[in-house]
Amino acid sequence: MKINLERLKNNLIELGWFGFDGNPDKEIPAGDNGITRLPYSTDYLKAEDYVRELMEKAGLKVWKDPAGNLFGKLSGKSEKGEMIVIGSHIDTVINGGLFDGSLGVMAAVESLRVLKENNYQNNHDLIAAVFTGEEGVKYPGYLGSRAFIGDKFSDKEIKELADTGVGEKELKESAVNTEKIKNYLELHIEQGQVLKEKAKNIGIVEGIVGISRYKALVTGKPNHAGTTPMDMRDDALLKASKVILEINRIVKELNGDHGRMVGTVGQLNLKPGAVNVIPGGTEFSIELRDMEKENIDKAIKSIENLEVKGLEIEEQFHEGGVYLDKKVQKEIAGAAEALNYDYLKMLSGAGHDASPMARVTSAGMVFVPSKDGISHSPEEWTDWQDVEKGANLILETVKKLDNKN
Amino acid sequence: MKINLERLKNNLIELGWFGFDGNPDKEIPAGDNGITRLPYSTDYLKAEDYVRELMEKAGLKVWKDPAGNLFGKLSGKSEKGEMIVIGSHIDTVINGGLFDGSLGVMAAVESLRVLKENNYQNNHDLIAAVFTGEEGVKYPGYLGSRAFIGDKFSDKEIKELADTGVGEKELKESAVNTEKIKNYLELHIEQGQVLKEKAKNIGIVEGIVGISRYKALVTGKPNHAGTTPMDMRDDALLKASKVILEINRIVKELNGDHGRMVGTVGQLNLKPGAVNVIPGGTEFSIELRDMEKENIDKAIKSIENLEVKGLEIEEQFHEGGVYLDKKVQKEIAGAAEALNYDYLKMLSGAGHDASPMARVTSAGMVFVPSKDGISHSPEEWTDWQDVEKGANLILETVKKLDNKN
Repeated sequence: MKINLERLKNNLIELGWFGFDGNPDKEIPAGDNGITRLPYSTDYLKAEDYVRELMEKAGLKVWKDPAGNLFGKLSGKSEKGEMIVIGSHIDTVINGGLFDGSLGVMAAVESLRVLKENNYQNNHDLIAAVFTGEEGVKYPGYLGSRAFIGDKFSDKEIKELADTGVGEKELKESAVNTEKIKNYLELHIEQGQVLKEKAKNIGIVEGIVGISRYKALVTGKPNHAGTTPMDMRDDALLKASKVILEINRIVKELNGDHGRMVGTVGQLNLKPGAVNVIPGGTEFSIELRDMEKENIDKAIKSIENLEVKGLEIEEQFHEGGVYLDKKVQKEIAGAAEALNYDYLKMLSGAGHDASPMARVTSAGMVFVPSKDGISHSPEEWTDWQDVEKGANLILETVKKLDNKN
Repeated sequence: MKINLERLKNNLIELGWFGFDGNPDKEIPAGDNGITRLPYSTDYLKAEDYVRELMEKAGLKVWKDPAGNLFGKLSGKSEKGEMIVIGSHIDTVINGGLFDGSLGVMAAVESLRVLKENNYQNNHDLIAAVFTGEEGVKYPGYLGSRAFIGDKFSDKEIKELADTGVGEKELKESAVNTEKIKNYLELHIEQGQVLKEKAKNIGIVEGIVGISRYKALVTGKPNHAGTTPMDMRDDALLKASKVILEINRIVKELNGDHGRMVGTVGQLNLKPGAVNVIPGGTEFSIELRDMEKENIDKAIKSIENLEVKGLEIEEQFHEGGVYLDKKVQKEIAGAAEALNYDYLKMLSGAGHDASPMARVTSAGMVFVPSKDGISHSPEEWTDWQDVEKGANLILETVKKLDNKN
């Protein structure tokens, strides 16, 4: 029993036309133009209708919840009502790509379609899930999957949804009994270059890293760039440059040989920012990602302890890391071995619907390589043979999980 | 024969009210609010009228040239028509201070006023000059002094003057026979902290440094900050940080113990500048100042030769350094010694009307200390006893220069 790559490929490409802003006569909606499908938008709803039709044609039982999640179910023999959810999302960032989210949704639909075609007698309810609003553009991130697991939304988040018709009531009504979710599975593009570098086609995700974001401020003295000799300066950019290099050194050092922490300074602003004035202030972002908050705290403490006068650091945001289920990882690995696929165990540096799902169930994720590590871009690309492998691995894993109690 | 500090102080303060945007009931137009007098503006012309009145009351022969420069002459005995010009400017930057330029003009007027009161029989024509548009805000910098010496203006510069009524014709008509300018003298605030640091009240300027400005571009790869491990990154800000630290090191090293080069990175922009994206590009300004273009070239070559991949540097602007006359410096030093003033020989890191003047005549400049090195700001301040010393030194030096052939 194998997935049908041609069909999966066609479905993925057809889905891609919804929200594509390039030439509609192209062969594939990718490359030079992007796809924009924000949740609840017209393009999003059209894309959703397309997926609904595919599900219905496949003989799945289809419904939508009040939050805007779409589901297609292949009912199981067992009467316990336990479900295995295979999902992802079809919303995109602004000017996004063909694969992020959509691949996981299409692989879920294709898997259940193949099982149905083969009259597979599943024990558990197998559900293909299209979670809405994963990307967090405009609305809170992981919107649909968080509603699904009954996560609490803050007043601020509810407010952000004001123009969608989805409010506290709808979010609450979308919550399922999470005890009935036996497993969650998701296929996603890697969005990095680790698989390519290690020459592997499959990544088995061990965990989704936590993220901490900080605002750093370095204060100096804004003086005349012509009349202030080098030894009388207190240059805020010079000091910030040292800090930026040290952040890199500290993160690498904490990593040692095996750690996988990353640290990034992605934004920086100077004051006053004039060509002939020594910078008096530098403000920049620090983002640290690691599975353990403890490691992040260690790094930030080392940064704070740098001997740089006028350095202040303030935490602005933290989202904890989530470990994926070891048993599910083992099932995926077993399935990969049976299929003769070479895999790599790895962390996900980006968040996914699997993050909220892993908080309530035994979850697993499969990565396929991203060309040049690019995502959230029209240039996002994954080779079709990798798509095929990823989808087959989901199919095999679903079968294995379904056969366990 | 000494200048009258009370009178000079009152004149300077009264001049300061023109264009002052703070409370007019204050004692002094400085501190929390700034002065804005752009050339040809109403406030500028009112301020100019005030100086004209002072000159006339002092018994000077007063005239204005077509470019907008104002002059007051104390005619000399000699019939050769040679002149000693003592000047500066009364235009300011936007939200500028009380002393920059205005001090030099008032010291010039006060010096001639004292000579006249004492029936001093000068050999040469002594001219107090108020050069227009030195600051280069809105219009080309050193506008008046450049017109005075017959400097060539580019088409672009002429165009910038379109709304002033001053065009190519007026600029040309303002040029004097520079062979008749025996000397130029200017008193100015230091705009730096060197005098304060060295505990001197007087600076004798040896030269005005040259300025080169560059645009530097460091290219990396913009990747996902979460999914790209530390050892797979090509972070443009990390590389730029190294370059910024190296610029500092290179400039200091070239300086050795005696050099006085300065190097500044005052502007920096990141692309894409998102908290969760590794910077793919960093653009920043490099400004180098030194008397010798050769030294600047040496520094920029060392910077270009840094082992940083993706670094490109492009020169955008150069203005040569100008040495002031050694004999005039000697006369100033002699006058300072006679007055028992402790002085420091130093460079000017900022440009002045003395820069164009030094290209056509033997020029000298005197600096007085700036509190905290601040200028171009409402907080610009120079202690009155330093103002007195600076003005007395100008008076004495004029007498000395007048007595030389």
